[in-house]
Amino acid sequence: MDLHRVRTDVLHDRRKRLLTHLASEPEAPGKLAIFAGQPRPRNYLANAYPFRAESHFLYLTGLHAMGAALVCDGGVWTLYAEAPSADDELWHGPSPSLERLGDVLGVRCRPLGELAEAARGAASLPTSDAGSNLAQSAALGREIRYGQLPLPGDVALAEAMVAVRLVHDGLALARLKEAAEAAREAHLTGMAATEPGLTEHAVRAAMEAVFLRRGCTTSYAPIVTTHGEVLHHHGHGNTMRAGDLLLADVGAETEDGWASDVTRTWPVSGRFSPTQRAVYDVVLAANEAVIQRVKPGARWRDLHLTASRVLARGLVDLGWLRGEPDGLVERGVHALFFPHGLGHLLGLDVHDMEDLGDRAGYAKGRTRSSQFGLSYLRMDRDLVAGMGVTVEPGLYVVPAILKDPRFSELVRAHVDREALARFSDVRGIRIEDDVIVTDTGADVLSRGIPKRPSEVEQAVAA
Amino acid sequence: MDLHRVRTDVLHDRRKRLLTHLASEPEAPGKLAIFAGQPRPRNYLANAYPFRAESHFLYLTGLHAMGAALVCDGGVWTLYAEAPSADDELWHGPSPSLERLGDVLGVRCRPLGELAEAARGAASLPTSDAGSNLAQSAALGREIRYGQLPLPGDVALAEAMVAVRLVHDGLALARLKEAAEAAREAHLTGMAATEPGLTEHAVRAAMEAVFLRRGCTTSYAPIVTTHGEVLHHHGHGNTMRAGDLLLADVGAETEDGWASDVTRTWPVSGRFSPTQRAVYDVVLAANEAVIQRVKPGARWRDLHLTASRVLARGLVDLGWLRGEPDGLVERGVHALFFPHGLGHLLGLDVHDMEDLGDRAGYAKGRTRSSQFGLSYLRMDRDLVAGMGVTVEPGLYVVPAILKDPRFSELVRAHVDREALARFSDVRGIRIEDDVIVTDTGADVLSRGIPKRPSEVEQAVAA
Repeated sequence: MDLHRVRTDVLHDRRKRLLTHLASEPEAPGKLAIFAGQPRPRNYLANAYPFRAESHFLYLTGLHAMGAALVCDGGVWTLYAEAPSADDELWHGPSPSLERLGDVLGVRCRPLGELAEAARGAASLPTSDAGSNLAQSAALGREIRYGQLPLPGDVALAEAMVAVRLVHDGLALARLKEAAEAAREAHLTGMAATEPGLTEHAVRAAMEAVFLRRGCTTSYAPIVTTHGEVLHHHGHGNTMRAGDLLLADVGAETEDGWASDVTRTWPVSGRFSPTQRAVYDVVLAANEAVIQRVKPGARWRDLHLTASRVLARGLVDLGWLRGEPDGLVERGVHALFFPHGLGHLLGLDVHDMEDLGDRAGYAKGRTRSSQFGLSYLRMDRDLVAGMGVTVEPGLYVVPAILKDPRFSELVRAHVDREALARFSDVRGIRIEDDVIVTDTGADVLSRGIPKRPSEVEQAVAA
Repeated sequence: MDLHRVRTDVLHDRRKRLLTHLASEPEAPGKLAIFAGQPRPRNYLANAYPFRAESHFLYLTGLHAMGAALVCDGGVWTLYAEAPSADDELWHGPSPSLERLGDVLGVRCRPLGELAEAARGAASLPTSDAGSNLAQSAALGREIRYGQLPLPGDVALAEAMVAVRLVHDGLALARLKEAAEAAREAHLTGMAATEPGLTEHAVRAAMEAVFLRRGCTTSYAPIVTTHGEVLHHHGHGNTMRAGDLLLADVGAETEDGWASDVTRTWPVSGRFSPTQRAVYDVVLAANEAVIQRVKPGARWRDLHLTASRVLARGLVDLGWLRGEPDGLVERGVHALFFPHGLGHLLGLDVHDMEDLGDRAGYAKGRTRSSQFGLSYLRMDRDLVAGMGVTVEPGLYVVPAILKDPRFSELVRAHVDREALARFSDVRGIRIEDDVIVTDTGADVLSRGIPKRPSEVEQAVAA
């Protein structure tokens, strides 16, 4: 367990803010227990994925302390952790004593064996992993299940955690910048590694190697594909051809768990074709229009609709869509080519706090639309300085959508298939930036990553 | 889901052999259900680790079919799998129909919704993941837990599965060679990427990038460390210095799940010091002595003791140990510097079938020794042609062992601390090869990876 990134004062402040927010909740619990979770086995118990602590625990401790839990009882914080054994030292090397752990975290520290007694009756949050929830259920003496907050105290804890984690402090901002900087180097490296005749694997490998060299990992399964129209494409076996676009949605996670999430789309040959360039410019215009409008008070759903209108106008200009742009957006026609949402919260999780469902992404009283496209919007909040979000408009020619009987009326009325056929070298384009809301506008963490067409072409040719 | 690696005839043969072995078990079940398992979430449900099907399922289907199960009822095999939906196609692209899946696998194929009825009463094997076991429990209508085989039919299935998977068929051998070949390129690349002043991360990144370029992953968490004496060292942040040895235990997994597991130890400077070279030669002698003795009928525990005797003799010659080598091994003194076992089964799992405990590694009637060192031996079988094993002797100066009160008597009587102190630039050396037992001896899959000191030095200098 590596302690060099732990900042005692920042952790102290985060825990204090959590308690302050909790105090304002109607059903504030007297006791909290935040669990680090258990390792995820791969094929047998000893062969686990690298252990990553649950994000709520990470936020308050900065530590990947397997199986540990942080308990707050009557305002006193105690970390319950496995005390290092002689056998541990043989297999895993020297690890910090509980005393040292407690000092670095600025809390009491007690052996894990005392957890169950201390945690009884505490409010808590479930994890996404069944094995972790089983261990947590045993410690709490009640059933813990993903997506469920059975006690009023659990709900209060979730609300307070969202309130605290929604606005990034200085350390969080520094870590998010570090993750974005890793993404910058990775995307530049990926662009330079792109060559007709290679498979997508080659680009993915070059990009991930950048993360590994920096001691980072990927924050989600990377997408590196010539089939950008498949929104979650995780194979990398296609051969890149000179006329293809390559879409790379690849973000880093720092050692202590903070994420970046960046997409760029570039021409394999190093030159956009006129048709590719025309569609790219529409997506870029939407990306930039949104970023210009990011500021405290702006409503995310409105920004999504702003992006949608820019895209719809572009598609009308390109001839793909027939109709009046704003009207097309009202009826959801743009979603035939932009089926997903504008973006999501960004923090320790790449979709920050998605473990709590829409509680983090949606402001109180707001819920998801049932309209195709808008239903995939992961967020609808008024922006606040310190929030991290992604801005990721895209345009995709998805055969599954265009042939879907649910949309056949819309397609027949508004899509010009002949015009679309002239853009056969465009399958999917997305441009995604990581943005921090500031007092006056937006700090684009991913701004160093080529985005204007000429910069992109230059980076691929490099 | 990618079908291009599936070999219908081989899968047919594997399923047939399984049934043949089952028929010879005293409590052969009439129905089997082999589960692919569920994805392992990372921090929220939608952000999972890349899905890898459970190895028993992979062995019989070759497919990473999330949530699927293969049922055999009265000799008829049926795959129950998720039928592709319209939304799947939008997010994940076109996927094969159930008809096509069934054709490629050579079995009936039915929608997952019919599984629970079909699986009732079937013998089955647990997985290592709690979430997968929950889904499996629901399908089978009984509780499934890691490490437990509650029904006689479960035990019979485990025994038959071990019997079949213990001897690799032609396709398995081809895949194991492919994994070893990826390890070869990775280790050569890692050696060439080693430079004083860089961190271990740089070497790890270069090695893993080789796997990713080939569409492989790591088969276990890689160890790349200047602290080889920490047996499971998973940090990579140390700066490599000219006098250090770097130990790299890094193996690949092919797209369809087959593993390699290779360790090399090389000097960061490109030149072994005389002390490093002397210890390296002892480890190499043990590695080669074992490989020469690998053949059908050889008992693994004897090979472990052969390695131990070569190491003990070497340590006596180096002056680290006092005593008569064979006597030192009998009393377990060598384990102060060689605390782990000689190796383990290798196949779809890097410790093949370790999910079944010692059932695969240990022949019937044989159990683990309680002696320190020997207790970590993961295998004690008589070798059979077609088995895959690792041969991985090592020598380590582990402070936690040398100061452990349990061993203070042995250390005082046999360890020459002054002599040991003269080898202060040696912390841990391991040389691990992947070996297939042949009719006449051993086929060393990892033979192309530099192992003789001069070859190693040359590869680092490259």
